[in-house]
Amino acid sequence: MIPIPISRAEALEQDAADPLAERADLFDLPAGVTYLVGHSLGPPPAGARARLSATQADWAGDLVRSWNSAGWIDLAERTGDRLAALIGAQPGEVIVADSVSVNLFKLAAAALPQARTYALFVEEDEFPTDQYIAAGLGGLSGAQVRQLAPGGGFDALKAGGVLIKSAVNYRSAEVADMAAHEREAKRHGTRIIWDLSHATGVLDLKVGADGAVLAAGCTYKYLNGGPGAPSFVYVSNALSGKLSNPLPGWMGHAAPFAFDEKYVPRDGAARFASGTPPILSLAALAGALEALEGVDLTQLQAKARALGALAIARAKAIGLDVPSPAEDARRGAHVSLRIAEGYPVVQALAARGVMADFRAPDTVRFGFSPLFLTYAGVWDAMDALADILASKSWDQPRFHSRAKVT
Amino acid sequence: MIPIPISRAEALEQDAADPLAERADLFDLPAGVTYLVGHSLGPPPAGARARLSATQADWAGDLVRSWNSAGWIDLAERTGDRLAALIGAQPGEVIVADSVSVNLFKLAAAALPQARTYALFVEEDEFPTDQYIAAGLGGLSGAQVRQLAPGGGFDALKAGGVLIKSAVNYRSAEVADMAAHEREAKRHGTRIIWDLSHATGVLDLKVGADGAVLAAGCTYKYLNGGPGAPSFVYVSNALSGKLSNPLPGWMGHAAPFAFDEKYVPRDGAARFASGTPPILSLAALAGALEALEGVDLTQLQAKARALGALAIARAKAIGLDVPSPAEDARRGAHVSLRIAEGYPVVQALAARGVMADFRAPDTVRFGFSPLFLTYAGVWDAMDALADILASKSWDQPRFHSRAKVT
Repeated sequence: MIPIPISRAEALEQDAADPLAERADLFDLPAGVTYLVGHSLGPPPAGARARLSATQADWAGDLVRSWNSAGWIDLAERTGDRLAALIGAQPGEVIVADSVSVNLFKLAAAALPQARTYALFVEEDEFPTDQYIAAGLGGLSGAQVRQLAPGGGFDALKAGGVLIKSAVNYRSAEVADMAAHEREAKRHGTRIIWDLSHATGVLDLKVGADGAVLAAGCTYKYLNGGPGAPSFVYVSNALSGKLSNPLPGWMGHAAPFAFDEKYVPRDGAARFASGTPPILSLAALAGALEALEGVDLTQLQAKARALGALAIARAKAIGLDVPSPAEDARRGAHVSLRIAEGYPVVQALAARGVMADFRAPDTVRFGFSPLFLTYAGVWDAMDALADILASKSWDQPRFHSRAKVT
Repeated sequence: MIPIPISRAEALEQDAADPLAERADLFDLPAGVTYLVGHSLGPPPAGARARLSATQADWAGDLVRSWNSAGWIDLAERTGDRLAALIGAQPGEVIVADSVSVNLFKLAAAALPQARTYALFVEEDEFPTDQYIAAGLGGLSGAQVRQLAPGGGFDALKAGGVLIKSAVNYRSAEVADMAAHEREAKRHGTRIIWDLSHATGVLDLKVGADGAVLAAGCTYKYLNGGPGAPSFVYVSNALSGKLSNPLPGWMGHAAPFAFDEKYVPRDGAARFASGTPPILSLAALAGALEALEGVDLTQLQAKARALGALAIARAKAIGLDVPSPAEDARRGAHVSLRIAEGYPVVQALAARGVMADFRAPDTVRFGFSPLFLTYAGVWDAMDALADILASKSWDQPRFHSRAKVT
């Protein structure tokens, strides 16, 4: 575990020793900005820009032939294989497609006939979309939908249905014990759909080793794929042949250009592709992933947590309530602080170049992307926060007047 | 109706008189290419490039704040409003989201409880995805799925279920009589989901006046939105309040950032948004639509059909079988020719700069995008085809050896 620096000098020393330090050069970030919002929208990696330019040139130059000549036709699969390496999956187990909402729907619908009971479970503090999707699927399929108390997912595994569960809670950053959940699920004929949105690209995920068989996740947060970058689907190779995609579009067909009347799904996770993927957004994602190429996931996770631990230590020192787990192993890469004046405080931070996000009514979230943040940068951001709170410098009309912009 | 030119000189005269001629300047097309594949992937309009650059600059500069400062948050709606004008819909009746596959699923699922019987109908010569999606939805919802003979959709309207029907058939270009279908559907408690993929951006569609209430369509064909550009959904304002999106993602919520447990859908077609839209691909589409800004849809349709009529006249003159309707009013903007040696002929055309597409076993399709094609260009393309067929110049090893490239 990386020690928590107790001075700016120590923070600088840790930066000097940081094995990921060079990765920051791969990002385009405005000067003077400390970007603690990588858990919401990652900044553009240079690779995304390069791939987007190349893709535009292919579109203009080779036109429709680019589907083959530029490799668009299997870009979702190839990008999936790159993502597989980041979550501990095998080649062929991940495909990029659609949005997290649509993918959770597809996976949960495909899992329902496999589970012991025809029921859907979601904890009530999950990201709201996960709950809306469960309700929508329940309405269409006739599956019973049960909302659970926060943390109630584990006990509900006894019921034998389908649980939609975040690996890292979007608000608290609490990490779920994936292996323990899966062991319990298998005992009871329950399927778990993991939402990896706040975990991918920062934690040392091992979906295969932990027994996870179904997951979806977001690529525009810590993977820096660009605004609304397409989502990914993970299906273990052991299971994919037994599953039906309820949204069988032509891109999930084994021979899309045969224009068969009969649907013959592709092997592996690729059967969960539906329509034509948005190639420009997908190309940006493919390029963005170059920033994670060859990265050691244990180093990535260790730095994300060390930055979070530094923020927590300093927040506690100034008397703030920190709802996120203090223990590193239980925490993802973001930290939530409870600040009654959270909204204007986030504005005041922004005025000093520190970008954070606010979630009503009183939560300030900092996301610690280990690829481009520094220990000294986080140290300084916490200095700024301490100063704003001590001087109550948010309490000025100019911040309130900018409210609508953020 | 525009007369069919009977000489190259007449074709040039028509180009000189073409009210849409200037629109070609808005496209980046390689020199020497006659692009008859706009029905498959439109070429890049300059507006798409410009919007994509601006969006990348917003991502790098204003980062996550661009959701508000650059208007990403309502870009799907604003782009939908632009599309509404192209299909005869009202503002608020169109939203850009997901793929055609996913949107047909959402609309058909939402329409089922509204129809007199819980059944889905698709003609067997519809685009295969439309059939796969009906089958997938049937499996999940329990709705009966019936495949109909080609053209059998009209008679099936008596059955009171949900019919998925193309406004223009992807293969033959046959146009469906939307108003007649809708009158019949209303008599029998049937809902029609129109697939406008091969109709939007070339025909003078009037969904509102024709009584259509539900439709989805593609934006990367004649709308030139870029590879895999997101699809659109049309829902009449009279109906939208009564429909539930079975994939209720947070972007269809009335207050997405309130993170409510309860799903409160937005007004209008926007309730059919699901997850976060792929902003880079969406921005390219928004820019691409500038090429259609202010265009007179009757002129657009007249030119598309006149180019098609020219191709048909010349194809018949050289003895080819033309499965597409000869009558303009019954034909969309593409023309299918039956050529036994279609595959190598398409290669031979490409070697002369004429891009067309081939669909097994023997169909050569030409798409007549009225925004960037000329009468003389089509004349010359048909000259090239006649010459290739007369000289059998496709029958050379070099074309066969390039087979895998196309």
